[in-house]
Amino acid sequence: MTSKSNSHLPPEFVTYYYTQTLDHFNYKPESYATFQQKYIKNFKYWGGASTSSPIIVYIGEEAPLTFGVHGKGFIVDLASRFKAMLLYIEHRYYGDSMPFGSFDEAFRDANTLGFLSSTQALADCAQLITDVKRNLSAENCPVIAIGGSYGGMLASWLRLKYPHIATGALASSAPILYFDDLTPQNGYHVVVTNDFRDVSESCYNTIKQSWSEIDRVAGQTNGLTTLSNIFQTCSPLNSSKELKDHLGMIYVISAQNDNPPYNPVSKVCGAIDGAPKGTDILGKVAAGLNASLLRGGPEAQCNHIIDFTPKNTSGWTWQTCTEMVMPIGHGENDTMFQGSPFDLNNYTKSCQALFGVTPKPHWITTEFGGHDIKSVLGNFSSNIIFSNGLRDPYSVGGVLEDISDSVVAVYTKDGAHGLDLLDATPSDPEWLLAERQKEIKIIELWIAEHNARLIKTGNRIGF
Amino acid sequence: MTSKSNSHLPPEFVTYYYTQTLDHFNYKPESYATFQQKYIKNFKYWGGASTSSPIIVYIGEEAPLTFGVHGKGFIVDLASRFKAMLLYIEHRYYGDSMPFGSFDEAFRDANTLGFLSSTQALADCAQLITDVKRNLSAENCPVIAIGGSYGGMLASWLRLKYPHIATGALASSAPILYFDDLTPQNGYHVVVTNDFRDVSESCYNTIKQSWSEIDRVAGQTNGLTTLSNIFQTCSPLNSSKELKDHLGMIYVISAQNDNPPYNPVSKVCGAIDGAPKGTDILGKVAAGLNASLLRGGPEAQCNHIIDFTPKNTSGWTWQTCTEMVMPIGHGENDTMFQGSPFDLNNYTKSCQALFGVTPKPHWITTEFGGHDIKSVLGNFSSNIIFSNGLRDPYSVGGVLEDISDSVVAVYTKDGAHGLDLLDATPSDPEWLLAERQKEIKIIELWIAEHNARLIKTGNRIGF
Repeated sequence: MTSKSNSHLPPEFVTYYYTQTLDHFNYKPESYATFQQKYIKNFKYWGGASTSSPIIVYIGEEAPLTFGVHGKGFIVDLASRFKAMLLYIEHRYYGDSMPFGSFDEAFRDANTLGFLSSTQALADCAQLITDVKRNLSAENCPVIAIGGSYGGMLASWLRLKYPHIATGALASSAPILYFDDLTPQNGYHVVVTNDFRDVSESCYNTIKQSWSEIDRVAGQTNGLTTLSNIFQTCSPLNSSKELKDHLGMIYVISAQNDNPPYNPVSKVCGAIDGAPKGTDILGKVAAGLNASLLRGGPEAQCNHIIDFTPKNTSGWTWQTCTEMVMPIGHGENDTMFQGSPFDLNNYTKSCQALFGVTPKPHWITTEFGGHDIKSVLGNFSSNIIFSNGLRDPYSVGGVLEDISDSVVAVYTKDGAHGLDLLDATPSDPEWLLAERQKEIKIIELWIAEHNARLIKTGNRIGF
Repeated sequence: MTSKSNSHLPPEFVTYYYTQTLDHFNYKPESYATFQQKYIKNFKYWGGASTSSPIIVYIGEEAPLTFGVHGKGFIVDLASRFKAMLLYIEHRYYGDSMPFGSFDEAFRDANTLGFLSSTQALADCAQLITDVKRNLSAENCPVIAIGGSYGGMLASWLRLKYPHIATGALASSAPILYFDDLTPQNGYHVVVTNDFRDVSESCYNTIKQSWSEIDRVAGQTNGLTTLSNIFQTCSPLNSSKELKDHLGMIYVISAQNDNPPYNPVSKVCGAIDGAPKGTDILGKVAAGLNASLLRGGPEAQCNHIIDFTPKNTSGWTWQTCTEMVMPIGHGENDTMFQGSPFDLNNYTKSCQALFGVTPKPHWITTEFGGHDIKSVLGNFSSNIIFSNGLRDPYSVGGVLEDISDSVVAVYTKDGAHGLDLLDATPSDPEWLLAERQKEIKIIELWIAEHNARLIKTGNRIGF
């Protein structure tokens, strides 16, 4: 383990690299290869091993590790409150944690990318946490795993699969049930639609009508030029699909991030509904685009139409092409979007073209379960919080009902994706304060129970 | 899945082959390779999916699958009692379940053997059970996993890691705590020693004194010839170590199998103590050898001295050389054996010489836990029986204390390895009948609770 200072982070966050096993589950010669996995320790608040003070572990998601530190102030608040050490673990194949020495080598082909999987990432966490605890003589300290979105799935799965490693888990906005046949495929876009409709029926109607209007204009002579002008695209449009994909992504991202105080759905709908009297449908939708998160702020001169085509340089796309198959799609008339059903055949073809791999749509439910979750985990497991904001379209694949006394669902009607983990601000609404307070109380109980069990089972806690 | 009749088994046991994934945890091109995994179904007693009748799954250990069927009558008795279907799953790399098409290819080198691991075997079970249930529309049927020794470890780990697959587990003589630093290294040989001493103090003393006597005679002119004659070896001895290893194995095997009605420890000690008056130490020990399980019966003319050197053709040796590192050893004066401490360095060198692999002695506790097991699983998990016979030297690495209301230890003072699973016989002692009755009652409760939860959570059970 080597350390280096990280100039982008406050000084109490110190970066290290752990020599991690490439393949935890096989014993081929190449399985023993290692890579440098980035992690961050912060001892500022820690009460120390002798008082059995907690270790809060941030389980990295599909992003560089600094994404887990910046803006996720609730985790630091928890550390301060519980005298916890903070340990942030970067996910393999993201950020600086590249097997095979470099991004280019790691992403060369399926032979090198093949070790990017959720089970390997969980075993990385298990091994790293065990070693860090051993080096601190902190074996008795409770570990609280925290993550958001995919990182939240990993946090809950770490508790389920490695209860000896994670004492409890806070899984924020983790759609662990959006796999296989567990959740209606159109659930995601139904929530997006409801978010918009809830804010404004006319906004919803405008968007719903806009797709065919775009198609109609695109079919006219110089239609794409017309559309490019209406939507102030920075470059001329190559197809109407490009525009529709971009607009669709605006609505999806707005719904997913429909958190206070910004509430992007209200912003977009405010612009759509607030367009000058007489503005036609496309003009209204264009006004919505200009008010959106992707515009790049008020000083932006035009709209960069983003290419959302999956790329073979994305680790997350690899993961969705192997095991993280979330069958998200929708029919012709069940949402405000044009029909786009999930089609496993096309999905598979696309993955084969991108990476040469075939997705395994049943694997996640085989490995981690999900069917009859309440029956299965009702008398098994403990100490997991599944937190969700119901405005988050992923919440439809989340756990929204208590499974047992200590595997519980915490949700807010007015929150969206990953809100609870974010920095506290003076404008945080009461319901958000209440959600965080509830999570704090639950985690406090886990820690107290852990330490009570230690005493009961004869493990010494020094004071 | 193809079926074939198996002439060595009663006709209700039907053999099939499942196209199993070679590598469940990576997504390299070779990970998608498959092999034919043998399994056996027996529907004779099954009440059917519509009544949510149980599926009892025998988790194969390091042996051909027929070892799980022959002589393990308790499992069939359970099926008969609970109207259960029986499903026997062969462990990869044993029996007929060879990846790469043949034993020779599978055992060629570490590149092909590398996929032999406990985690892969558990995922094999998860995938196979899921598919078998789906094909029978038996998703609602409770699954009881049963195994003995290493298979018992797998059964308990299947419940711990895949609670959505296994409703409960009976882990018979599963030393899940004989890893890392969890159990005293000399525990195994201390139990062997106590078994002998318990039967006869003089027998114990004779054996304890015999080792130096063998060394003394071996050091004489023609000493090995003398020893070969005393011990009636079929071939002349090449070293005194050969003899001592063979005798040591006799005692160990006798203790491990010290089950009624045969009770091999009493047989060996009876011969040692019953030697004609005036017989010297080596003559007594030779009489013990002649009465032992390895003699080959009364009609055997001589003792075949078995070569116990680890071989690279043994799948189990591969497993002990990678993850299943049980640090079994003993000091100079703590058992009736000559000192032979566990030495990880020598162990590692031997594995590197045999297979070119380096053992990972901490992996099992990282992956499956074990430290503070009562604290960790006390409020996690449910529905596991750890059964042990205390005369079994492996019992010292077993779970001998209840962990919670439903993760329980069942043991018999006078039983040894895997006794509860064996065929019932008219001479079974009361304490064995009571043990099996206790296990039946517990499993009955699991099944009743499972079906009650199904009703509560709204899953239909037809009658």
